[in-house]
Amino acid sequence: MGVGHSSLSSCSVDSLCITAFIAQPKTSSFSNSNRQKPLFPTKKQSPFAVLKIGTLNCARVAGEMEIEKGIAAAGKPIVDRHGIDDGWIQKIVYDALVWSSLHGLVVGDRNDQRSGKLPGVGMVHAPIALLPTSFPESHWKQACELAPIFNELIDRVSLDGKFLQDSLARTKKVDAFTSRLLDIHSKILEMNKKEEIRLGLHRSDYMLDEKTKLLLQIEFNTISSSFAGLGCLVTDLHRTLLNDYGEALGLDSKRIPGNTATGQFAEALAKAWTEYNNPRAVAMIVVQTEERNMYDQHWLCTLGITYNVRTIRKTLAEIDSEGQLLPDGTFLVGGQAVAVVYFRAGYAPTDYPSEAEWRARLLMEQSSAIKCPSISYHLAGTKKIQQELAKPNVLERFLESKEDIAKLRKCFAGLWSLVDADITKKAIEKPELFVMKPQREGGGNNIYGDDVKETLLRLQKEGSEEDAAYILMQRIFPAVSPTFLIRDGICHKDHAISELGVYSAYLRNKESVIMNDQCGYLMRTKVSSSNEGGVAAGFAVLDSIYLT
Amino acid sequence: MGVGHSSLSSCSVDSLCITAFIAQPKTSSFSNSNRQKPLFPTKKQSPFAVLKIGTLNCARVAGEMEIEKGIAAAGKPIVDRHGIDDGWIQKIVYDALVWSSLHGLVVGDRNDQRSGKLPGVGMVHAPIALLPTSFPESHWKQACELAPIFNELIDRVSLDGKFLQDSLARTKKVDAFTSRLLDIHSKILEMNKKEEIRLGLHRSDYMLDEKTKLLLQIEFNTISSSFAGLGCLVTDLHRTLLNDYGEALGLDSKRIPGNTATGQFAEALAKAWTEYNNPRAVAMIVVQTEERNMYDQHWLCTLGITYNVRTIRKTLAEIDSEGQLLPDGTFLVGGQAVAVVYFRAGYAPTDYPSEAEWRARLLMEQSSAIKCPSISYHLAGTKKIQQELAKPNVLERFLESKEDIAKLRKCFAGLWSLVDADITKKAIEKPELFVMKPQREGGGNNIYGDDVKETLLRLQKEGSEEDAAYILMQRIFPAVSPTFLIRDGICHKDHAISELGVYSAYLRNKESVIMNDQCGYLMRTKVSSSNEGGVAAGFAVLDSIYLT
Repeated sequence: MGVGHSSLSSCSVDSLCITAFIAQPKTSSFSNSNRQKPLFPTKKQSPFAVLKIGTLNCARVAGEMEIEKGIAAAGKPIVDRHGIDDGWIQKIVYDALVWSSLHGLVVGDRNDQRSGKLPGVGMVHAPIALLPTSFPESHWKQACELAPIFNELIDRVSLDGKFLQDSLARTKKVDAFTSRLLDIHSKILEMNKKEEIRLGLHRSDYMLDEKTKLLLQIEFNTISSSFAGLGCLVTDLHRTLLNDYGEALGLDSKRIPGNTATGQFAEALAKAWTEYNNPRAVAMIVVQTEERNMYDQHWLCTLGITYNVRTIRKTLAEIDSEGQLLPDGTFLVGGQAVAVVYFRAGYAPTDYPSEAEWRARLLMEQSSAIKCPSISYHLAGTKKIQQELAKPNVLERFLESKEDIAKLRKCFAGLWSLVDADITKKAIEKPELFVMKPQREGGGNNIYGDDVKETLLRLQKEGSEEDAAYILMQRIFPAVSPTFLIRDGICHKDHAISELGVYSAYLRNKESVIMNDQCGYLMRTKVSSSNEGGVAAGFAVLDSIYLT
Repeated sequence: MGVGHSSLSSCSVDSLCITAFIAQPKTSSFSNSNRQKPLFPTKKQSPFAVLKIGTLNCARVAGEMEIEKGIAAAGKPIVDRHGIDDGWIQKIVYDALVWSSLHGLVVGDRNDQRSGKLPGVGMVHAPIALLPTSFPESHWKQACELAPIFNELIDRVSLDGKFLQDSLARTKKVDAFTSRLLDIHSKILEMNKKEEIRLGLHRSDYMLDEKTKLLLQIEFNTISSSFAGLGCLVTDLHRTLLNDYGEALGLDSKRIPGNTATGQFAEALAKAWTEYNNPRAVAMIVVQTEERNMYDQHWLCTLGITYNVRTIRKTLAEIDSEGQLLPDGTFLVGGQAVAVVYFRAGYAPTDYPSEAEWRARLLMEQSSAIKCPSISYHLAGTKKIQQELAKPNVLERFLESKEDIAKLRKCFAGLWSLVDADITKKAIEKPELFVMKPQREGGGNNIYGDDVKETLLRLQKEGSEEDAAYILMQRIFPAVSPTFLIRDGICHKDHAISELGVYSAYLRNKESVIMNDQCGYLMRTKVSSSNEGGVAAGFAVLDSIYLT
């Protein structure tokens, strides 16, 4: 699932749509320029206007939750970040902006028309959290442990063509996009074609439910898992800032876990290329025609060059016009053999404006090139499959280890089909406890609050099969933290919720697993605003984690 | 002398104003986007549309000069860069733009209002040459050898207050800016204040005269020598590109000399800070209120942090309002002691819009802070002093080594005061062989061609002392090379002339010299257009050198 990409900076980061209702302090912004900068505070001064340690003032979430209670309960002191003196914040913000500019932590500026078309023009620093967000070490370890198990699960699910087709059969009838993907999948099944070398570059997204203290999975991304490149840089940025300011702020840079997502993703791509065993072949990145998140992609490809793997970037339309499938399965683009196809496009209906793009997708799928992801991996990452896997006794069809199964199940949120009458009834009664998720990628399509009730009632009344387009998910209420979010050079002091994404890479050939690793992480943090609709307003920023 | 700074990208890079008259091919531009990119050429293909080795077609410069004749004469094969296939060029351009974006080779976009005020917003890749420009190894070595000798010369000149005052006495009468600098200098002389710790971060600019094959000095910059940071990155960029494409292009990345300007400038600043011996003091960078070249500066300051030296950025106006001189000479800004003042502003009259800025300059000069440059160093770098030093028997007043003196003299272009009637007569007769240079920093004020004749005749007629505002310099005719220049994401195929800047650092205390090193380099390359006025049109780009 392609998360956010160019839409991150325009506020709709998918899976950050779970809203917590809290009393909002007025958002305040800092404007920074070297002229307006205050005097630089010396180390002797305390950076805290009023130093607060311990449980913070209780802002209420859904009337039940105390901010950062979980962290306080772990017995660790909490720094009141909003208590940090404005002068210090402005200095740290300035340093963060400089560091981002010098180290390629950049995106295309959505205010500049050229920014998605051409590298090097219309650049702006990526939206970032000023400081890393607190996260319990135990839950971090749990998320890391889950990574290779999910990798193995997805691989096995991908091999069960019947399970994928059956599970998505009802969805197929009402969702045109999923239907086209399933058509390609059917053709591949008919060809009896096996993907012997399989590469997955995944990101599993979690939120920490404040009430239950459970790490719950939001979704598992098997296509276009983005921000591995920029995520690593945010970790580096936060470590650099804490090396400079941590002592004064009472924060230790060593509490930020290392992040090797860029290097490991590049390594996985390079190893897959090696497995393909054609030294003259290239790795092809499938891209959108415009992509403001291109620098995140370029970070991986630059490292591709480190491994001496030539990369080319092509849109689906270009692949349609330049691609050629040889009888032996070799896929040529512009006459060059392609060893690895890495999708950073193709996850959303808008990526297929004409039949040309679908032709390109099918052609690649029919070839011997290693697809990241294959059509099977893509389908295995859909929300419907996520929900099917959460049903009793389904994991047991794919995994042997009871321990692994138990670990996975522990992170499953409640997930239901709308066929389940009991749950539908409950959701109509208490819609605030559920989220309705359509089979749509890219976020922003989830349904919350009273809209859940209304949509369910309408579907019941109509009696159509449209219900198959949705799944119901338990609503997760994450912790709300005082945060500083920086976008377009401006720092916003606000309260925010965060979502942890854990990257993982999986590579195997016919004989054995070559790589099955957790590969770093990305925290995404979003202003948590209360509003009538219950849909989170504000924008999301890239973040790292501070272990507590 | 502050070269270009924010004006680089707006085309007036000082000292790149020497124009060669050549027949111009029409400039062609490549537009790059991943959609428009051609197929990636394989290594097997030749990148040359028509491969040409040897002397190029003779475009004539001043009717006498063959392009790259000097290099051809050195017996090395010459690659006809304009013969490289467009598909390859577009691919290399794309890679260059990506690399620049990811590695902080950026400037503020002059089309974005915020770009000079705030880091991280309105960024664009720095204007760059696509490939390094050929330069003879012997002349490169000569320029490097000169660096420590010039450092020593400037230091000794700076100690001779009477020489500076006397040499600039006539200039003082007609140039208000130089006059104000001299006033500060006089006050310091009256105080009998000695600068015991002296720090110079210099850049000596040269052009290679095509006709005489001489390396001739354009000027010696003692204030705000810019582009040390970005220049190093251009070297890295060109090496990276040649590592990828050099084999196919017949270019060896090892022929690009290493560039350590950033690190050595930062080291010099840090060592000066150590000499000041106040662990709580900061290094202060004096900046303009708006600065699109801020990233070049930040590269130095980031490394400053490497040395654990805290830096602050202040404008002259801020220094006036926040600065305080203690009786013991300590200079405080906002209550913090300042160990080192590093000027990246203050070199142009526009940097002093009111008396506040002049007060700030005087206050710093009166303090014990180490100024880079001190007022004496600043004056020692003026064009008038350059011209005085070129007079017979003047170098001998400052240096003992006849060998050193000979080396310096060899790189002196013809330099004359307008008092010299013979030369003035010659310049009126053959104005195309001279340049008139005013005591103005920042470039764009030089007078060429028929304007030289007209200005000289007017000055003679008026009989005023305005002639003291100028010096006359021998016009240098550098080689013209086929080049690719990239600005705003667009690649221009054109012919260009280049100027080599060699950075050097000098630091000494009362007892001894601590540092006296050549520190890397910067090539600046500019489209050499023929036009009526003889003033070079087009824009300048950052470049590195390829030794031949």
